Amino acid sequence: MSGAGKGEGLEGITAGETAVCTLAGHMSYRGYTIEDLAAGATFEEVAYLLLYGELPKPSELAAFNERIAAAAKLPEPIVATLKSLPRNIPLMDVMRTGASMLAHFDADLADDSRAGYLRKTEHLMAQLPLVMSTAFRFRTGREPREFEPGKSLAANILNVVRDRDPEAYEIRAMDVSLVLYAEHEFNASTFTARVVTSTLADLHSAITAAIGALKGPLHGGANERVMDVLKQVEADGDAERWIRNALANKVRIMGFGHRVYKDGDPRSKIIKPFCEDLAKRTGNERLEKMADVIERTITTEKKLPANVDWPSGRLYHYMGLPIELYTPMFVCSRVTGWSAHALEQHENNRLIRPAAEYVGPAVRPFVPMAER
Amino acid sequence: MSGAGKGEGLEGITAGETAVCTLAGHMSYRGYTIEDLAAGATFEEVAYLLLYGELPKPSELAAFNERIAAAAKLPEPIVATLKSLPRNIPLMDVMRTGASMLAHFDADLADDSRAGYLRKTEHLMAQLPLVMSTAFRFRTGREPREFEPGKSLAANILNVVRDRDPEAYEIRAMDVSLVLYAEHEFNASTFTARVVTSTLADLHSAITAAIGALKGPLHGGANERVMDVLKQVEADGDAERWIRNALANKVRIMGFGHRVYKDGDPRSKIIKPFCEDLAKRTGNERLEKMADVIERTITTEKKLPANVDWPSGRLYHYMGLPIELYTPMFVCSRVTGWSAHALEQHENNRLIRPAAEYVGPAVRPFVPMAER
Repeated sequence: MSGAGKGEGLEGITAGETAVCTLAGHMSYRGYTIEDLAAGATFEEVAYLLLYGELPKPSELAAFNERIAAAAKLPEPIVATLKSLPRNIPLMDVMRTGASMLAHFDADLADDSRAGYLRKTEHLMAQLPLVMSTAFRFRTGREPREFEPGKSLAANILNVVRDRDPEAYEIRAMDVSLVLYAEHEFNASTFTARVVTSTLADLHSAITAAIGALKGPLHGGANERVMDVLKQVEADGDAERWIRNALANKVRIMGFGHRVYKDGDPRSKIIKPFCEDLAKRTGNERLEKMADVIERTITTEKKLPANVDWPSGRLYHYMGLPIELYTPMFVCSRVTGWSAHALEQHENNRLIRPAAEYVGPAVRPFVPMAER
Repeated sequence: MSGAGKGEGLEGITAGETAVCTLAGHMSYRGYTIEDLAAGATFEEVAYLLLYGELPKPSELAAFNERIAAAAKLPEPIVATLKSLPRNIPLMDVMRTGASMLAHFDADLADDSRAGYLRKTEHLMAQLPLVMSTAFRFRTGREPREFEPGKSLAANILNVVRDRDPEAYEIRAMDVSLVLYAEHEFNASTFTARVVTSTLADLHSAITAAIGALKGPLHGGANERVMDVLKQVEADGDAERWIRNALANKVRIMGFGHRVYKDGDPRSKIIKPFCEDLAKRTGNERLEKMADVIERTITTEKKLPANVDWPSGRLYHYMGLPIELYTPMFVCSRVTGWSAHALEQHENNRLIRPAAEYVGPAVRPFVPMAER
């Protein structure tokens, strides 16, 4: 990272305007603080807010949920493709292929009106969780299972992954994590979606691209790496010793620090009590304590506060969800934020095409093949 | 476009360094001017130059070509998926799905060493043209056809699309167009590939994302729109009248103007003589004259010089290539530039995460569902 030149990373460079979310002062979606939303709204309400700009009235939410439930089907060729794939490949790659293939069967593909964007987003909100669950069920030797129309996304994800009815406190914890993952201003995957949209490419191209960006361990992939760390700590048994050792050896611990938040990520503070509660209910208090030791040590020694990925990893772990699902679940939530940004970019568009600083060879005479 | 706010489009903002290509002063790849390369090098030599930094010696080129030929196979599940897709969907969407699926079968997927990047690029150089030709042959009622190992990409594309041996002058024209499309600094699709790579996501995620960006009509999709214009002009029969009318009605004509080139795109000047030659050989002189009238009028009246897409569309048309292949052929060439940039980004990485200007509602009190 240190060798990067001037302008690399676009840190602090304003790349455009947005009305979807701000992190300045207080993290908020469309003017509602993330704390209020996590406490008072479901993921479905937040998704509606991000896409339509206002919190839904009961009738609006019911219609929204019905439209999503109606779209919760995968075209047969996609199911066949998912079935044909190797079972040891990254599930995020399968999500990316699934998003790309969904374009082939979406009747609204070429409709770039506001209504078309919103319809396509609702389709993707219904279908991407099915891509995830169908692929995951195939690789765990099970046939696909449908989502239940009257249930929330949080409940359905837990259902189809674990094949047992989730507890209310599990649904609530999952729902909060979906709310917190839904949107985060000009992060790398959202910015990717905006760059793709700026060429007037369609929504499915933007979402497919964003999934690829989210995969990276410096972005969404971090929540999987966090759990790898916790597994090492658990195996070691002494969190204090493990983290002193890791810091002495300059091991990079994922889940800490953030380009934008220097004083702590408000999302990690919201999730932590849910981790503590779930740890108690599921007999994971030892791991929870170890996580706390790691967090306090890194915060004190490195001045790096925990970001959202730090508690999310173990939250999912306490619910018995396999690591490979963590970033795909992030996709199922963030598709709402990506789409809100793609629509916003599309409605006030300018091609995103930055300049580069050339550091290559000066113009040199061509050498024909015979003289090389 | 006009309503876009400050910072939108990142125009003139330096987003990083590159040694692959510059457009400043003179367009060059790795220090060789585009005129010299178009005149003296094949697409394969240029691809090697972009990826390895130097023009290949004969033995290096032979080994490079052999590696690409050895990779020119599509895994069976990809062929099956291509066969299962609807036949009226955009071929660029199929390219995007194909690129994403190729990741599932690439043994080097997780190898992010320099050698791994280069191997994966060579695989994609071999496989993406096969995704294009296989999908295109299915939708034209034909079985897939293999590429001939000893032949150039230009010759193979013409072969498998048209099922007849191309003339030498056709291969040459196609080869020049591939050379000119191979790379173009921080254009929107290349920048997309760099943003995705900056999260440490893999090369296939970056290329899949870039294909989505290239699809947009403000970017690679423009060469298809150019041909739509020429077909309208041809049907009208009077180019002078058609363009006066279009300008009076403020119709946007694709293929003119460029964010970077204000005094003309050097690539369009290189292709134009090939268009004139092909027009003569194929009895398309009338259309070529009409294109010339359009170009002269727009250059004079709107001060917008032709960009590379303007002559490319009809160059392909004169060779009897269907419009839906134009942007996918662009992919087959540009994958080299995208990969060179992804590798460069990866080797000197910083997460690309710009800032946003918030223009949404100020923080407002939450309203519970019952009160909405």
